[in-house]
Amino acid sequence: MAAAKGLADAAVRVTVVDRRNHHLFQPLLYQVATAGLNPADIAHPIRSILASQANARVLLGEIVGIDPETATVSLDDGTDIGFDYLVVAAGTSHSYFGNDGWEAHAPGLKTIEDALEVRRRVLLAFERAERSDDPTERQADLTFVVVGGGPTGVETAGAIAEIAFKTLTREFRVIDPSTATVILLEGTDRVLGAYPESLSKKALRQLRELGVDVRLGVMVTGIDDASVETTAGPIAARTAIWAAGNEASPLAAMLGGGTDRSGRVTVGSDLSVDGNRRIFAIGDIAHVVSNGSEVPGVAQGAIQGGAHVARAIRADLSGQPRRDFHYRNKGELATIGRSSAVGTIGRLRLSGWIAWMAWWSVHIFFLIDFRSRLVVLFSWAWSYVTFQRGARLITGPWRPQRPSGDS
Amino acid sequence: MAAAKGLADAAVRVTVVDRRNHHLFQPLLYQVATAGLNPADIAHPIRSILASQANARVLLGEIVGIDPETATVSLDDGTDIGFDYLVVAAGTSHSYFGNDGWEAHAPGLKTIEDALEVRRRVLLAFERAERSDDPTERQADLTFVVVGGGPTGVETAGAIAEIAFKTLTREFRVIDPSTATVILLEGTDRVLGAYPESLSKKALRQLRELGVDVRLGVMVTGIDDASVETTAGPIAARTAIWAAGNEASPLAAMLGGGTDRSGRVTVGSDLSVDGNRRIFAIGDIAHVVSNGSEVPGVAQGAIQGGAHVARAIRADLSGQPRRDFHYRNKGELATIGRSSAVGTIGRLRLSGWIAWMAWWSVHIFFLIDFRSRLVVLFSWAWSYVTFQRGARLITGPWRPQRPSGDS
Repeated sequence: MAAAKGLADAAVRVTVVDRRNHHLFQPLLYQVATAGLNPADIAHPIRSILASQANARVLLGEIVGIDPETATVSLDDGTDIGFDYLVVAAGTSHSYFGNDGWEAHAPGLKTIEDALEVRRRVLLAFERAERSDDPTERQADLTFVVVGGGPTGVETAGAIAEIAFKTLTREFRVIDPSTATVILLEGTDRVLGAYPESLSKKALRQLRELGVDVRLGVMVTGIDDASVETTAGPIAARTAIWAAGNEASPLAAMLGGGTDRSGRVTVGSDLSVDGNRRIFAIGDIAHVVSNGSEVPGVAQGAIQGGAHVARAIRADLSGQPRRDFHYRNKGELATIGRSSAVGTIGRLRLSGWIAWMAWWSVHIFFLIDFRSRLVVLFSWAWSYVTFQRGARLITGPWRPQRPSGDS
Repeated sequence: MAAAKGLADAAVRVTVVDRRNHHLFQPLLYQVATAGLNPADIAHPIRSILASQANARVLLGEIVGIDPETATVSLDDGTDIGFDYLVVAAGTSHSYFGNDGWEAHAPGLKTIEDALEVRRRVLLAFERAERSDDPTERQADLTFVVVGGGPTGVETAGAIAEIAFKTLTREFRVIDPSTATVILLEGTDRVLGAYPESLSKKALRQLRELGVDVRLGVMVTGIDDASVETTAGPIAARTAIWAAGNEASPLAAMLGGGTDRSGRVTVGSDLSVDGNRRIFAIGDIAHVVSNGSEVPGVAQGAIQGGAHVARAIRADLSGQPRRDFHYRNKGELATIGRSSAVGTIGRLRLSGWIAWMAWWSVHIFFLIDFRSRLVVLFSWAWSYVTFQRGARLITGPWRPQRPSGDS
C-alpha cells in the first residue's frame, strides 16, 4: 500500500494484486481474536483506499508464479501480467517448525479468519466447561496456552486473561471463569526478546500481576486437542494459540535472489533483490539490513520500505541515482491486558499506564488512517453522507472459483 | 429472551438453551449481508443479556428431542433436562419448496453466517467481473437476483442497488458497477404483500426509481450457479439470494400438538400447545391467531408472545387464570435503499423520507436495547470502563464436538 500510494502522481501504471479484498492492520488482530474489535474495525477494502488514485488498479487474485527472466507474474486464473517493476510484499505465514499437524490444534494469528477462529475457540471453551460434569475435563477446557512470548503472544495472553478474569465474571452459573489458567510459553529466558531487557522484566511482572502463568525457557514438543507437550512436561489444555514462528511467503523463493534461513529474500541497500534492480521485496518477506542491523518485521518497517521503493522507482524514472534505505525505528509498544503496556518511543522507555496511553494513541492514530475506529463511531451517519460502507470485507476461505455448492 | 426476562423475579429456575451464543436482531441482518453493519452490531451474547438475572442459566447446545410425555428435552451431548414449563421459540428456516439443491446457489438470510456468505458473494461478483474478459460472463457476474418481495427481499434488493449504483462507483477500472442489474422476483402481483396495497405501490415505485428491476407475477423454477430459471424465462445471473419461503423449525413437530401446512405449531389463545398447558410455542414457529387474524412472524409478535407466556406462568404460580393473548400491531416499516421507506405506525401510513426517518429511529431504539449500535459509538471507551466487549460472537458452523483437525 505504501509503495502504491508513493507512486500516486508518477508516470506509471500501478497494479495491486491481493488474494484478499482488504488491507489488514495486523497489530490489532489480537483484539479481533479476543472479541474486542470487529473485523471491519481493523481492515479496509484495498479498492477503496486506492479509489481516487487514477493510475492504480486493483485485482483480487492469487499470484502462483513469478518469472524474473520474462518479467511476468502469473495469477491463479491463468492470466499473466508483465511488469517493468515488481514490488513483493507478501509477508509471512506461521511456521510450526516442520510440525504442520500442530496447526489444527493451535491456530496462529495472521488473517481475519485466523482471528475469528481463535475467538470462536476461546469463547467455546468456557461454554463447554459450563456444560461439563467432569472436573478434569472442565479444567482442561479452562486452560489456555499461548505459545510464543513476542508481542502477539504477550498481547493475546493478556487479553484472554482479561476475558476470563474480568469480562465473563457473573455470566456463568456452574463454572467460575476466574478459575481459568492462562499460560504463556516462551522458549528463551524472557518475553518481548526484541525489547530492552528492563522492559522485558516489567512486561513479565505485569503479565504475572494480571494472572498470566508465564513459563520461560520452555519449548513445545507436541500439541493435540487435549494437551500441549513441553520440555517441562505436559499441560492438559483444550485451547492453544500459536504465536511462535514465522516463515516467508512462498513467493520469496520465486524472485531469483538469495533467501535466509527463514526463507526471507535478501535485498540490497535499495531493497531490490540481488542481481535484479526491477524486483523489490519489502516488509517481513524481506531480510533487510539498515544501519548495520536487521530491520524487524513490524508494520513501520514495511511502511518505510514501501515508501522507499516508490522513491527508488521515481529516481529511476527521472534518471537520478537510487538512495540507500535507512530504517528509522520510531518505537515499539506492546499492551499487557487492561491499562498497562511496555515499549519505547524514540529514546524513551515507557511502561505501565503511560505506555498504555501511548499505545492507545498510536493505534487510534493508525486506525484513523484506516477510516476505521473513529469512523465506526459515526459509521451509520457517515455511510449516509458518503455512500461508503464500513464492513466491506470478503472473509472466509479464499475461493478462486465461482461460487458453487460447496458452501 | 422476552419470556426469560419476564420471569426475572418469579420463583422459578429458567434455563435458556440455544445453539448460538448470541441473540440476533434479525430485522437488520440484511444490513450485514450488504456490508453496512458488523455482525456484532446486531447480535449480543445471550449470557451477557441474562448475566444479572440470578434465576436464569444459559446453555450453549442444540435440542435434538422433546418428549411431552415425560416433560424432558434432550441435548446433542446426551444430557436430558426435565421441565415444568417449556417455551419453544426456535423460529423458522428457509424453505426452498422441496428444491433443496437451490440453497447452494441462492443462500437465504437467517443467521450471521448466512449474511456473511451473501456479503461475500455480492462483493466477489464485482471482483470477478473486473477480472473477466468475456462481456457475457461479466454481465452474468453483474446480475443479482433476489427471490421474494417481502420486507427482506425488498430491503436486500434496495441495499444491493445502493452498493452497485452508489458505493462502488469510481473504485473499479475495467467495469462500471452502475451497469449492474438488480432483479427482484415476486410471485404475486405486488411487493410487501402484508402491507396496505397503497404502500406496496409506493414501494414498487421507490424500488424502480432506485434502479431495481422488479418483476411481479414471476415464479422461480430452477437455480444453478449460472442462471435463475423463471416462469418468464431464464436470467443469466451468478448471484442469487433467497428471501421467498420459510418453514418452521423441526422442533415444532416434537411438541405433540397440531401443525399448519408451513409446519408451524397451532397454539391456543394462551399460546400453549393444544392439549398441553405446560408447553408454549411463540414467535414464528407458532401459528397464532389473535383478534380473529393470524399474527405475522415478525419480531414484535415474538416479543409480545414471550412476555405473554411469562405472565401466563406467573398466573399459574399464583393460582390465577391465564389471560388470552392479544397481539397489538405497533406498525411495520421496510426501507427501500437510501433515505426511503414505507410502512405503518398505528393508523398512520408513511412513505418516503419520513418513513425512512421513522424506520431509522425505531431500529436505533431497538439497537440501544441490544447495547449495540449506539454502544458501538463508544465501544472502546465503554469496554474500558465496563470490562464488556462488543464482539463476543461465536460464528462459523455449529460444532458440537471439541475442536479438532477439521478447521
